[in-house]
Amino acid sequence: MHGVVEMVYETIKINKSIGALNERLASEIRKVLDEAGIRAFEFLGGPGAGKTSVIERVIQHLISEKGFKSKEIGYIGGDVATSLDTERIAKLGVQAIQINTGGMCHLESHHIATALKRLDVSSLKLLFIENVGNLVCPTYFRLGAHKRVLVLDAATGEDKVVKHPQTVRECNIIVINKVDIADAVGVNVDKLVSDARRVNPRAKIFKVSAKVGIGIREFAEELLS
Amino acid sequence: MHGVVEMVYETIKINKSIGALNERLASEIRKVLDEAGIRAFEFLGGPGAGKTSVIERVIQHLISEKGFKSKEIGYIGGDVATSLDTERIAKLGVQAIQINTGGMCHLESHHIATALKRLDVSSLKLLFIENVGNLVCPTYFRLGAHKRVLVLDAATGEDKVVKHPQTVRECNIIVINKVDIADAVGVNVDKLVSDARRVNPRAKIFKVSAKVGIGIREFAEELLS
Repeated sequence: MHGVVEMVYETIKINKSIGALNERLASEIRKVLDEAGIRAFEFLGGPGAGKTSVIERVIQHLISEKGFKSKEIGYIGGDVATSLDTERIAKLGVQAIQINTGGMCHLESHHIATALKRLDVSSLKLLFIENVGNLVCPTYFRLGAHKRVLVLDAATGEDKVVKHPQTVRECNIIVINKVDIADAVGVNVDKLVSDARRVNPRAKIFKVSAKVGIGIREFAEELLS
Repeated sequence: MHGVVEMVYETIKINKSIGALNERLASEIRKVLDEAGIRAFEFLGGPGAGKTSVIERVIQHLISEKGFKSKEIGYIGGDVATSLDTERIAKLGVQAIQINTGGMCHLESHHIATALKRLDVSSLKLLFIENVGNLVCPTYFRLGAHKRVLVLDAATGEDKVVKHPQTVRECNIIVINKVDIADAVGVNVDKLVSDARRVNPRAKIFKVSAKVGIGIREFAEELLS
């Protein structure tokens, strides 16, 4: 047998009771956030896409340029093993909670509910939730955030949108990070952008480099809009 | 609340009956492969780490330098949506099967069992299995391969080993890919190597660039050893 034979499996269905429970709790979390006047953003993306770096840059911008006090900003960081990302964000003085999932591949809304109890919610205006580095599983579990931000690593190739259409469809904002090195590794960022527009015409798309600071101001404005 | 509060959840347990069934079928697959004289390698890694590129380069090397015929080499590619990777590998003339998981975040051994029925097993000597791009979930599901190869993207940062210790522990060979651009993005490859040695002292480690061809010969020798 030569050439490609494609075997297509049925689209997965998350266990109904777990999925429904997660959704219900996510709605409750949204209500709590709305009543407290907090805007929440969930960040998802593959490992090393630069989720933490993008959040770090945006928070710096909000504090230095937009008059936010550090205590008005919260961060919940999900990771399978370490607290490296949360330590980085905590250095900015903001409220930071690490959720070590113990090997689990995504955050669920019960993680967020528990984390919120540890935050001084009355001071918060903005909440950044960073999911586990994974382009697949977090897609299926809403966390109660107002907007979902997908961070794509431009340096990992032009195929990332077409290979993960479900994830692209389920987000509100797409940040294409590392645009400063895309050329050097032979990736056409415009292909990523046009693929993303096709798969999800409603999403706002930003070309960003957290490392050198490209596009952070525009992305921050979108979060505050 | 300022600073880091770490909330550690219990290490996940895969649903016992699903896990046991997967392991049992993986053992059966291994027996079938052994009886047929086929050596199988599972490749796992995050999206864009370069799994396909590494496999492509190795297959080219095996055919051009090691006397393998294309029909002696098989490839099973797992993906959530596209068959792009399998199309690339099929161009080498080898036996190639695409498994579209329909959104599922990892391959399981039943996928491999089904794919093997479509391959001309009697011609095969080597089988490359490429898992879904995901650094977390595939860790927990063995596929019957003789060795598991973890492909890490050096360009995504020095923290990838410490952030995914379970995945690093559960592999036999670690390929640190994209070492040609690590310097340019400020990543110290030696830190990745020393972290990997600490977390998994038994694993063989190779510094590779599939793009420019670094380390492919040495890695191919390891697969044939």
